Amino acid sequence: MNNLKKNIEKKGTFLDHDILKVDSFLNHQVDIDLVEEMGECFYDHFKNASITKVVTLESSGIAPAYATARRLHVPMLFIKKSEPSTMQAPFSSTVYSFTKQRSYTICMEQNYLTENDRVLFIDDFLANGEAFKGVEQLIEQSHAKIVGVGICIEKRFQKGHSYICGKGYDLLALASIDHIENKKIIWA
Amino acid sequence: MNNLKKNIEKKGTFLDHDILKVDSFLNHQVDIDLVEEMGECFYDHFKNASITKVVTLESSGIAPAYATARRLHVPMLFIKKSEPSTMQAPFSSTVYSFTKQRSYTICMEQNYLTENDRVLFIDDFLANGEAFKGVEQLIEQSHAKIVGVGICIEKRFQKGHSYICGKGYDLLALASIDHIENKKIIWA
Repeated sequence: MNNLKKNIEKKGTFLDHDILKVDSFLNHQVDIDLVEEMGECFYDHFKNASITKVVTLESSGIAPAYATARRLHVPMLFIKKSEPSTMQAPFSSTVYSFTKQRSYTICMEQNYLTENDRVLFIDDFLANGEAFKGVEQLIEQSHAKIVGVGICIEKRFQKGHSYICGKGYDLLALASIDHIENKKIIWA
Repeated sequence: MNNLKKNIEKKGTFLDHDILKVDSFLNHQVDIDLVEEMGECFYDHFKNASITKVVTLESSGIAPAYATARRLHVPMLFIKKSEPSTMQAPFSSTVYSFTKQRSYTICMEQNYLTENDRVLFIDDFLANGEAFKGVEQLIEQSHAKIVGVGICIEKRFQKGHSYICGKGYDLLALASIDHIENKKIIWA
């Protein structure tokens, strides 16, 4: 998606050698027109996959997941990164964050996904795929089926891309970074 | 907003005597059509207020904030409930959560709100107004001006409503609970 790539090149900044900061338009301040365009791309790709629910992980995936779910006319479900006191017996799993260098629990209520659901998972970033693996474990507990994975920005040189494709999921990444050379992005 | 009230009456559940759980359609699983209708109501009310940015607090406010910002054609900014390692010198303040019975830090990057910004704050719930006060302190640090507050569900019998109106902010609550009698909602 050229417009997303242009925004990354123009407004993204690097912290350390490979942490890409895109919080001026994607995961803190949100450029609505750009996210709407992302929603349109995800919709175009997955519109014939009989998706029944768009699932994301709070918080940065919510905007693109919302834009996609609106077009698919299905509910959106955001998995929580902590267990709210209002949840009674949620499904849960553990995610290790390389950025934060710690593990955290993710959870969702049991009754919002069933074996009849066909899930499109949307997230802002894909790097090592740790968040995806946690989500996959949660969704397996519900017996719903993941039929697609939509990622705004993937770092193809990390492990997540191969993991997801290796499992046979249909993966669409709107901006795919092959590698980074001296803080310059080389697109895949 | 009658449709929201109907959803609350039909699908909302009570935990303890006054914690209202609406996670089947608002703050875990999201009913997109309903949130779009909320966005339309917020837009109708605030469309002439020269809003430059819609601000919310992650995560449950993001969907209604997005729906509103899309209609106002302005960016949406979601304040973080923890300090990401990628933030360098954010504005921050502290919020006490009565539900969680603990305080937490909220923060945002300094450069996304300026003294020229006119802010519409959107959130899913208003109870004691603790989250709003934390957000207000953050926004004061940026010298932006809060010109409106849009709330999906307010508990008018708690302190937040009077606090916000007392400060002279234009408050629109789409579903306003006057009080609760034996787990039955009496609308304001």
